[in-house]
Amino acid sequence: MALATGMRVPARALLRAWAWLPGAALGRTEPAAGGSGGVGVRRFGNQRVLVEPDPAAGIAVMKFKNPPVNSLSLELLTEFVISLEKLENDKTFRGVILTSDSPGVFSAGLDLREMCGRNPAHYAEYWKAVQELWLRLYLSNLVLISAINGACPAGGCLISLTCDYRVLADNPKYAIGLNETLLGIVAPFWFKDTLVNTIGHRAAERALQLGLLFPPAEALQVGIVDKVVPEDQVQSTVLSVMAQWMAIPDHARQLTKNMMRKPTADRLVKQRDADIKNFVSFISRDSIQKSLQIYLEKLKQKKG
Amino acid sequence: MALATGMRVPARALLRAWAWLPGAALGRTEPAAGGSGGVGVRRFGNQRVLVEPDPAAGIAVMKFKNPPVNSLSLELLTEFVISLEKLENDKTFRGVILTSDSPGVFSAGLDLREMCGRNPAHYAEYWKAVQELWLRLYLSNLVLISAINGACPAGGCLISLTCDYRVLADNPKYAIGLNETLLGIVAPFWFKDTLVNTIGHRAAERALQLGLLFPPAEALQVGIVDKVVPEDQVQSTVLSVMAQWMAIPDHARQLTKNMMRKPTADRLVKQRDADIKNFVSFISRDSIQKSLQIYLEKLKQKKG
Amino acid sequence: MALATGMRVPARALLRAWAWLPGAALGRTEPAAGGSGGVGVRRFGNQRVLVEPDPAAGIAVMKFKNPPVNSLSLELLTEFVISLEKLENDKTFRGVILTSDSPGVFSAGLDLREMCGRNPAHYAEYWKAVQELWLRLYLSNLVLISAINGACPAGGCLISLTCDYRVLADNPKYAIGLNETLLGIVAPFWFKDTLVNTIGHRAAERALQLGLLFPPAEALQVGIVDKVVPEDQVQSTVLSVMAQWMAIPDHARQLTKNMMRKPTADRLVKQRDADIKNFVSFISRDSIQKSLQIYLEKLKQKKG
Repeated sequence: MALATGMRVPARALLRAWAWLPGAALGRTEPAAGGSGGVGVRRFGNQRVLVEPDPAAGIAVMKFKNPPVNSLSLELLTEFVISLEKLENDKTFRGVILTSDSPGVFSAGLDLREMCGRNPAHYAEYWKAVQELWLRLYLSNLVLISAINGACPAGGCLISLTCDYRVLADNPKYAIGLNETLLGIVAPFWFKDTLVNTIGHRAAERALQLGLLFPPAEALQVGIVDKVVPEDQVQSTVLSVMAQWMAIPDHARQLTKNMMRKPTADRLVKQRDADIKNFVSFISRDSIQKSLQIYLEKLKQKKG
Repeated sequence: MALATGMRVPARALLRAWAWLPGAALGRTEPAAGGSGGVGVRRFGNQRVLVEPDPAAGIAVMKFKNPPVNSLSLELLTEFVISLEKLENDKTFRGVILTSDSPGVFSAGLDLREMCGRNPAHYAEYWKAVQELWLRLYLSNLVLISAINGACPAGGCLISLTCDYRVLADNPKYAIGLNETLLGIVAPFWFKDTLVNTIGHRAAERALQLGLLFPPAEALQVGIVDKVVPEDQVQSTVLSVMAQWMAIPDHARQLTKNMMRKPTADRLVKQRDADIKNFVSFISRDSIQKSLQIYLEKLKQKKG
Repeated sequence: MALATGMRVPARALLRAWAWLPGAALGRTEPAAGGSGGVGVRRFGNQRVLVEPDPAAGIAVMKFKNPPVNSLSLELLTEFVISLEKLENDKTFRGVILTSDSPGVFSAGLDLREMCGRNPAHYAEYWKAVQELWLRLYLSNLVLISAINGACPAGGCLISLTCDYRVLADNPKYAIGLNETLLGIVAPFWFKDTLVNTIGHRAAERALQLGLLFPPAEALQVGIVDKVVPEDQVQSTVLSVMAQWMAIPDHARQLTKNMMRKPTADRLVKQRDADIKNFVSFISRDSIQKSLQIYLEKLKQKKG
């Protein structure tokens, strides 16, 4: 796929500094100082997905670190896909925990700045990266578990929905859902398919139309998360759930997961270009651009 | 579509007298006296779907009024589709509440008299009207909410299932379900699809085979309705739910609804004529006609 | 279908001795002494599916009797299909209860000895028999109810999932589920489809990947069974549920059942040979054969 190919070079530079620390159980891998120069270094200096490997346990933690709200910028998406691919290809690792390094937010979702005031080629590149991330996560051979330690709207919710299991911290501020309609936009069909596969047709129909963000108790009831625990128990819960999943023979589990998910993924694969065209055409509309600009202005004023 | 086209003329006559009363909040629109003669007048005199517009609120209430049990006669279906189309095309209105003017019954469903002792052309016309109503309701751009204030079997249940939300009055006599098998007939595949989309495959399989009519508590549990409230709170509940749905930008909500429902609607659209043929052939059988005649005789004796 | 055809002769011999005993309400049909010689006699002497007819009630009980764990051997499958076909073709019978004659086990599922150390032709014949049983059960015109009076893993679970209703005895040892991944193998797509149709996509995805065996309370909650009752009430509960299902006109119920299930069954019918080839190729692998041999050795040692 072109996306991954085009990113090979900076990725290698980026990953050169990513040393597996045996025994560094779920502790953060500090980036090595310096670097090899070029794009890779810049990206490394701006590392947006921290990877904390625990080779002895066969798992790694991936932490979104794109403050303040872990927006899914093109750089984050690129880095995410490359890191994931590296873990996927390294037989040391069988499971990955996705979580946030930014307090109070798992991920706020797609980065509006990538969709506003740019040219069509940029929109296309961005959308392809979003598709790529979804495809790789949804069909990952790794056991993926979300430790949702913050608000989880829109694209953040999508990422967690691709996981095999979702644990949400019991904090009323941490709501989860695909709330696109609230911004006047529409979740694409593969977001919708992922939600329907998780909570069923009727609940998805209501949640998507109303742009519902479910607080913990409701999230559990509707099934958009699998478990709600006190915030300080998220990590231990996720580790014990991971142990349960890793007790299953990989090959049989992977084939089973693929059997469940491939038909859904194939729907996008078969019309990936058309989906990109749709997105570019939609997002390029004057009316959409204007409302995004207004929204972004408001965000800036809040900060200022 | 031929059905709508063929009905344009009487519809216009009928609707001529239908004046929007600004500020008539959820109050009944009294039919104007007189009329312009012809078919329209006769139908107007027998108005079976009362429309109570509240343009200020952007909503309208449609009340079935075909005593004693709001059977879905060809006339009612025709009037219903025309009124709905008018609301759909009038940008004043964004939401519609469906309810009953007949005490104790939301709608008893399809009118057996339209399916018994008539000729095949009539059966075909009737079935096309049933299809048309379903297609227009299921894909309506309006927010549709059912205020189910009475028994809701068969076709009555189908209508409520096309809505975006269902509120059922908590009265043990008000049961809801697709009970076709109890009469020895079979719900068509699009009734089935609508139910599966609402309560899932397994619950639908059991409910359809057994012809289950769910009383309020069970209806809520299985998910065939979204809320059960005391009878005197149905109206206020429906209005507050409507307010929640109307807070969502229309365009995004409509596109989302269409994305969820179009594949199901398309299944009928693609084989609409075959479905009519199937119905006509089934209903024309001597055995079916005889059992319908016996059933209708019993109903007459009950009344007499 | 070749399977049924090829088995006609021994089947007839087997069934010759199967006399309906009017009034033998749910009591066991004792096999007649002697027989007509040949393969039929041998099989009859090894009868693995007891059929206890109650013609007055219009129902029959089929009891797995293949001690110690009711493994679904080729002989049992063959006998099962033939007995089922006979009941299906006899208008006396409208409902069948599936249960176990072996204490503590409904059925342990497919017989590993049929899949280990044999030749490809045998594997193909065996798999075709498994397919055949599923197809006939899943599309049966009879009302099928499972009285699950023992552990119900893998193929045992599959059989119960084809029924119209499942009653599980409330014994913590009686767990139910498709646990194939625990053995390092993968449930085929039609096992998966049957489970998805019963408990939905998300619950099936988790249950299949983890090879979950649900104890009674969890089984009820996830919906893999419809009712859990104390062990001594299983029979009475099943009979009263059967009465409810038999109150529905057969023709309408059968057409409805077919409408719900045929698309799922057709997915296998359309690729039945490919599915057999896949199975033979998978099971013939050295790695799979070795692990099955090791597993079977362990089982032998346990017994010894």
